[in-house]
Amino acid sequence: MKCRVGLLGVGTVGGGVAELLLEGREGLRRRTGGVDVELVAAADPDPARLEPLGAEGVACYADASDVIARDDVDVIVELVGGTGVAKRLVLDSLARAKPVVTANKHLVAVSGAEIVRAARESGAALGFSAAVCGGVPVLLALRTGLVANEISSVVGIVNGTCNYILTQMTAEGTPYADALAEAQAAGYAEADPELDVGGHDSAHKLTILAALAFRTPVDLASVSCEGISGLDVSDIRYADEMGYVVKLLAIGKRVGEGAGAALELRVHPTLLPRSHPLAAVGGVFNAVEITGRSVGRVMFRGQGAGRYPTASNVVADIVEVARGSAAKASDQLAFWDEPDGLQVAPAADARTRFYVRFSVSDEYGVLGRIAQVLGRHCVSIASVIQKEPRAEAEDAGVPIVMLTQEARHGDFCAALEEIDGFDFSRRRSVFMRVEEA
Amino acid sequence: MKCRVGLLGVGTVGGGVAELLLEGREGLRRRTGGVDVELVAAADPDPARLEPLGAEGVACYADASDVIARDDVDVIVELVGGTGVAKRLVLDSLARAKPVVTANKHLVAVSGAEIVRAARESGAALGFSAAVCGGVPVLLALRTGLVANEISSVVGIVNGTCNYILTQMTAEGTPYADALAEAQAAGYAEADPELDVGGHDSAHKLTILAALAFRTPVDLASVSCEGISGLDVSDIRYADEMGYVVKLLAIGKRVGEGAGAALELRVHPTLLPRSHPLAAVGGVFNAVEITGRSVGRVMFRGQGAGRYPTASNVVADIVEVARGSAAKASDQLAFWDEPDGLQVAPAADARTRFYVRFSVSDEYGVLGRIAQVLGRHCVSIASVIQKEPRAEAEDAGVPIVMLTQEARHGDFCAALEEIDGFDFSRRRSVFMRVEEA
Repeated sequence: MKCRVGLLGVGTVGGGVAELLLEGREGLRRRTGGVDVELVAAADPDPARLEPLGAEGVACYADASDVIARDDVDVIVELVGGTGVAKRLVLDSLARAKPVVTANKHLVAVSGAEIVRAARESGAALGFSAAVCGGVPVLLALRTGLVANEISSVVGIVNGTCNYILTQMTAEGTPYADALAEAQAAGYAEADPELDVGGHDSAHKLTILAALAFRTPVDLASVSCEGISGLDVSDIRYADEMGYVVKLLAIGKRVGEGAGAALELRVHPTLLPRSHPLAAVGGVFNAVEITGRSVGRVMFRGQGAGRYPTASNVVADIVEVARGSAAKASDQLAFWDEPDGLQVAPAADARTRFYVRFSVSDEYGVLGRIAQVLGRHCVSIASVIQKEPRAEAEDAGVPIVMLTQEARHGDFCAALEEIDGFDFSRRRSVFMRVEEA
Repeated sequence: MKCRVGLLGVGTVGGGVAELLLEGREGLRRRTGGVDVELVAAADPDPARLEPLGAEGVACYADASDVIARDDVDVIVELVGGTGVAKRLVLDSLARAKPVVTANKHLVAVSGAEIVRAARESGAALGFSAAVCGGVPVLLALRTGLVANEISSVVGIVNGTCNYILTQMTAEGTPYADALAEAQAAGYAEADPELDVGGHDSAHKLTILAALAFRTPVDLASVSCEGISGLDVSDIRYADEMGYVVKLLAIGKRVGEGAGAALELRVHPTLLPRSHPLAAVGGVFNAVEITGRSVGRVMFRGQGAGRYPTASNVVADIVEVARGSAAKASDQLAFWDEPDGLQVAPAADARTRFYVRFSVSDEYGVLGRIAQVLGRHCVSIASVIQKEPRAEAEDAGVPIVMLTQEARHGDFCAALEEIDGFDFSRRRSVFMRVEEA
């Protein structure tokens, strides 16, 4: 069977897709038992990017609309990125009943419901497997392989930039700013890294993962989001002393039962015990662990970004569309556009253990006063590390590091606010959540 | 859309499938956007197993043929197991153009070509996702999610029993026989454990993994297979001293290029560096790492066996059949029944590094003579551990433990045979392959 592709955007990933389709056409046909994918048209504002495609006989345009308008295009691949032009192009394609494949996590996270509605109305297929974890087929698993399971949690390392930075801080003791600069120099981080290190990119991916895992519409704004930019190497070292590794996790959890069921959706730096399957996932690798009622815990690990890994998943979606077995928006994704989904639990209600580092003046009775405030807010201390003050950092105070028992986030934060207001507090305390194995 | 299931075999997995279909019917319909799977008939020679199904309105039979003969059954689920009756039932179903879903790895490994041929002739769908790694959707990934990739290797821990035994030997220093007894007591190992500990079950799974990964028919007999029953705790301890973990791996690798391309297919205990993603997979967990040209290294990890995990994948296959998107044997699996596939390279030609433990008498010059023989067979020594003899084990000799550089398997074995023939050799030497990170 034949499938003619129109490619919008020939940047890093788009160029990779073009290469896989042009050079890999025969191999793909062999591996799929006869799916013949032909790249017929491509659009990009930069003529230099189009030139090699033109030489291969691909019709080239500066304006993406010209590709969408072609009658001989069976599927549109949107790799323009962003939520502006890209959204219009996706909606235009679907309005013409052209199936769409995209890797645009930001767009799907922000406008998933609207796009699914457009796809349902026209009956066109919609694929976005490459929007989360690059080439790792984790969305495929949620859509089909794990469909027999009620999912109770999705926990992932879904941003390679942050994982690279944290791995460097852990393995080499590199300070945060230097590790970020290294990531930028290696091409892993954008010039403006806020989307990554602020946790926002992880929140986009969590929105999509959670929507598919829990079959519910998820509002990006309901994801509670903390990044890694406040972390200090000392926190990573203290965590290590206590047997933990620090990872930026995206966590979606079903809490409560029946009518009281709700979702916790949060992105934050997290202490993971070394025995946790995600703890060993280092560098730019991504991994997601899914817990299902029947299957138990299943983990997927691989390269979460990059030209070819992402292109790999884009091409898999194209083949699915060609085979006619793509997620028909009208049935499998219908939940996304439905009015009532699972409620998101208030961030303050989430219960976890906490790591906290106080920076206090070196005086008598401080630990007792901290413990008293924590106790009043229903936070029990599990263990404490108190270090000798370092002469060179006297003004930063003495660090007191604690692990708490499980506590309500709101209670814990109220206690911290009170403690940070005391005269003996030299700096704002730093805290992280703890996930157990 | 509606899908009516006939279930053959209500044992551990079959009972789990029945439970998921009966109790989970509504949830499944919700998660799939409308696929309504109804268990209409079941067969088992044991009436006690059928009784609860009968109470739920499922038509029950002692003879599986009666289920296949029913016109109102849309898909047959074969969970009888084994290669005798099960094969006849699968072929009968396909001959009636009834789609078949099975978890029968032994049958698919031994008779894959014949079954695929029958499915192609009748046009019926065939699903066997649960045949490898229980609930982990690794075959799904090979069939669809990674289809853009030429796969260069598939490396997996695919037998939970062996992994449990090796984990106990490693973590607790439990001798092999005791660890096996523990596995049997915990229900992880059969009374006759040879299928597991001999590596044969892993070889079945490798046959299926490799067929799908490399899109080639694979003859089970061409898999070189070594089990774990010859291992001693001391080998695991020496490996640990050198920074390695011992795992029973199933390895499929594409070697050579173009017309000279061939497959290495081998199951054997293996030293893995601790940093390898598979090294941390302990207990009864399974994991498979796949390397694809575009996607790089992707790992899948989860429970490789058990009632509900396996049932999870069986139900996913049923849904795929119901949606009409199941692997149509006529296209995606055609390779299995084709005459010319990739050749399997002779086991003697595989090149790896080796771990070896010699047991020798405590006399002058032994190490030199060993080194000389190895050198003559083109085997270079990378490192050596020589231990003081233990008084209590004098007759067992002194252990000399080595890691070699990469060497040809045939050369290495020829060297060992010569060395084992010397008077100073007290016992047969023990060796394992080494895989690098």
